[in-house]
Amino acid sequence: MRLSNIADPVGERTIRPLAVSMGDSAGVGPEITAKAWKARALHSLAPFFAVGDPRAVAKVWDGPVASITDPEEANAAFDHALPVLAVGDAGDVTPGVPDDRSARIALHSLELAVGLASAGAAGGVVTGPVSKAQLYGIGFTHPGQTEFVAERCGVSGENAVMMLAGPTLRVVPLTVHIAVADVPSSLSIEMIVAKGRVTARGLLRNFGIERPRLAFAGLNPHAGEGGAIGREEIDIIAPAIELLRAEGIDAVGPFAADTMFHARARAGYDVALCPYHDQALVPIKTLHFDEGVNITLGLPIVRTSPDHGTAFGIAGKDQAHPGAMIAAIRMAASAAQRRAEAGA
Amino acid sequence: MRLSNIADPVGERTIRPLAVSMGDSAGVGPEITAKAWKARALHSLAPFFAVGDPRAVAKVWDGPVASITDPEEANAAFDHALPVLAVGDAGDVTPGVPDDRSARIALHSLELAVGLASAGAAGGVVTGPVSKAQLYGIGFTHPGQTEFVAERCGVSGENAVMMLAGPTLRVVPLTVHIAVADVPSSLSIEMIVAKGRVTARGLLRNFGIERPRLAFAGLNPHAGEGGAIGREEIDIIAPAIELLRAEGIDAVGPFAADTMFHARARAGYDVALCPYHDQALVPIKTLHFDEGVNITLGLPIVRTSPDHGTAFGIAGKDQAHPGAMIAAIRMAASAAQRRAEAGA
Repeated sequence: MRLSNIADPVGERTIRPLAVSMGDSAGVGPEITAKAWKARALHSLAPFFAVGDPRAVAKVWDGPVASITDPEEANAAFDHALPVLAVGDAGDVTPGVPDDRSARIALHSLELAVGLASAGAAGGVVTGPVSKAQLYGIGFTHPGQTEFVAERCGVSGENAVMMLAGPTLRVVPLTVHIAVADVPSSLSIEMIVAKGRVTARGLLRNFGIERPRLAFAGLNPHAGEGGAIGREEIDIIAPAIELLRAEGIDAVGPFAADTMFHARARAGYDVALCPYHDQALVPIKTLHFDEGVNITLGLPIVRTSPDHGTAFGIAGKDQAHPGAMIAAIRMAASAAQRRAEAGA
Repeated sequence: MRLSNIADPVGERTIRPLAVSMGDSAGVGPEITAKAWKARALHSLAPFFAVGDPRAVAKVWDGPVASITDPEEANAAFDHALPVLAVGDAGDVTPGVPDDRSARIALHSLELAVGLASAGAAGGVVTGPVSKAQLYGIGFTHPGQTEFVAERCGVSGENAVMMLAGPTLRVVPLTVHIAVADVPSSLSIEMIVAKGRVTARGLLRNFGIERPRLAFAGLNPHAGEGGAIGREEIDIIAPAIELLRAEGIDAVGPFAADTMFHARARAGYDVALCPYHDQALVPIKTLHFDEGVNITLGLPIVRTSPDHGTAFGIAGKDQAHPGAMIAAIRMAASAAQRRAEAGA
C-alpha cells in the first residue's frame, strides 16, 4: 500500500483504526481511554477503538459508548462515541479493586488487540496499564506486555527494543528489569550491536529520522574515566559502537551519563542508549513524567503504551490524567502512517 | 559567637570573608571568580577573596584586582576590586594549557584556603575547579578535593558527605567514584546510617532545616520490587532507614529512583540519597546543569564548590558562565551565617 498527498498524517483517516487495549479493568485504563476519546478533536487523534469490558468504561465515565463487533465499524462510530470492542465476559469489576477477573480482561484485551493489528485489521496497538503481579496470578509468564507482544509477533527479546519517548528526549535501556549486580555481566558486544541496529532502524521506520544519531552512555561514573573506574566501556561498549559505525550507523559514545541529559546535550542526539534501567528512566521521568510513551521497536506491528502504571489508588475517582495515553495514541498513529507511506 | 537581628544573612558582613581557591590556573576558575566579583551587587554576594595567582586573573579579565596579604584586608578591598591573596610563585601559566605549574597553584590555593578557614580567618572555603589528572601528576593522592579537605579537617571519609544542591533538588550519592560492579558490595547498613546521620545534621546546620526529610532511592529498578529484582533494598537499605528513624531522623524509602525526581515528587523531601553516582547526578545535572553546587557536609568548616570542571577548552575565551560559582559563594555565605547564628 502506498499513500500520497498526506497533509496531516495524524489527522488523516488513511490508516486502519488503532486498537487500544484498556489494560486492567480495575485500573485507570478505561478512564484515560475514554478521556482521550473526549479530547480527540483537540489533539487531532486518529480513530481508535477500545478493547476491553464496556462495563468498566461505564463505571468511570458517563460519555457515549458505541459497542462494535468489527474494527471496520470504528471509523464511523468514532465521531460520536467511544467505540468499544468487548472481550469475553470475565465478570463485573470494581474500580480500584483488582482481582483475577480484571487481570483476565487485561490479558484477553491485549491478545485481541495484538491479533487484530497482526492481521491488519487495526493500524497498531496501544496497550493500557496492567498489573504484573495480577497477571502473574493468572499464570502470565512473560516479564511484561512488551515481551508478550514480541513473542506473539515472532520476534526474539534481543530484537524487540523498548524505547521511552517524551517531547525532548528518547531513551533506550539496554537492560531492563534486572538487579544492578547483574547488569555488568548482562552486557555484551553482540547484544548492544543488536539493540543499536533495531533502534536505528526503528527511528527511521516509526519516526522518519533518516540518519538517526545514537548516543551511548557508559556503564560507570564518568564513563569509566579511561578504565580507572571500570572497564566495560573499553571492553564492551566502545567496540559495539565501532561495529555499529562500521555498518554506517551514526553511533557515538560512551559518554558520562550525568552530563548527557541537560537541554544542550539532548540537542546533540536522537536517542540515548543506556546500559541499565534507572540510567535511562530517571532522566525521562524527571523531564516528562506525565507525557512519556513506551514504544516497542523491531516489531512487524506498531505498539505504544502510556508510560505509567494502573494507579489503582485513584481508579474510579476521575483524577487520572490522559496525557500519556493521548501521547501514546498520537505516536502510534504517526508511526503507522509513516509505515504505510513507506509501503511497509 | 552569637549574632542577632540578621535581616539579610547573605548581605550582612557579620561573617569572615570567604576564601575562594581559584583551582587550576589554566582552567576557567580565575575567570568565573572574577566574573562573580563583578556580579557581587546583583547577587548580594558576601565579601570573598580569591586565593591563587593574580597573573592568571589578569590574563583573562581586565577588571580591578587588589593584592592582599591578610584576609582581614578583604572586606575593605571588596567594594572596589577583586581581592587576591597570592600563593607562592609557581611560574607563569597560559589559559587552556594545564601543566605541573598550574596544578601546583591549584593545590597550594586549596591548602591555603582550607587552612585559613580552619583557623577562623576565612568564613568558609569555595573551591574552584581542578583537574584530577593534573593533580595526580604532581603526586596528589586523594580521590578529589572533597577527600583532601576532609582529611585536613580530621574527618573520616564516611563522615564527610558530598551533597549536590540546585534550586529544586538536593542529592547525596552514597557511593561516588566506583565501578557499578562494585556498588552492591560497597553498600552496608553502617555506611548508610552514618551518611544519613551526617546528611540530616548537615541540612540543619548549613541550611537551617529543623527536621529534614531524607528520601532514599533503592539500588535496583523499581527498588527491587519486593525482592524480585535484587535484595539490597530488603537486606541493607530498609534496615538502615529503620535505624535512622529510630534515632528520630525523618528517613523514608527505599523508593523506585525513576519516579523520585519529577516536580511533584521532589516537593516531598529535602534531600534524595542514592546508592550510586549516576542515580544522584543524572537528575540534578539534567535539571540544574549550570547552577549546581557541591557542598561537603560533616566538616568543621563550610566548604562548597561549583559543580563543574576546569573546562580547559574555553579557558581564556571569555565564554565561561559564573552561575555555579555565584551559587557556590552564596551557599557558602548562607551556611557560614547559619553556623555563626547557631554559635557553632
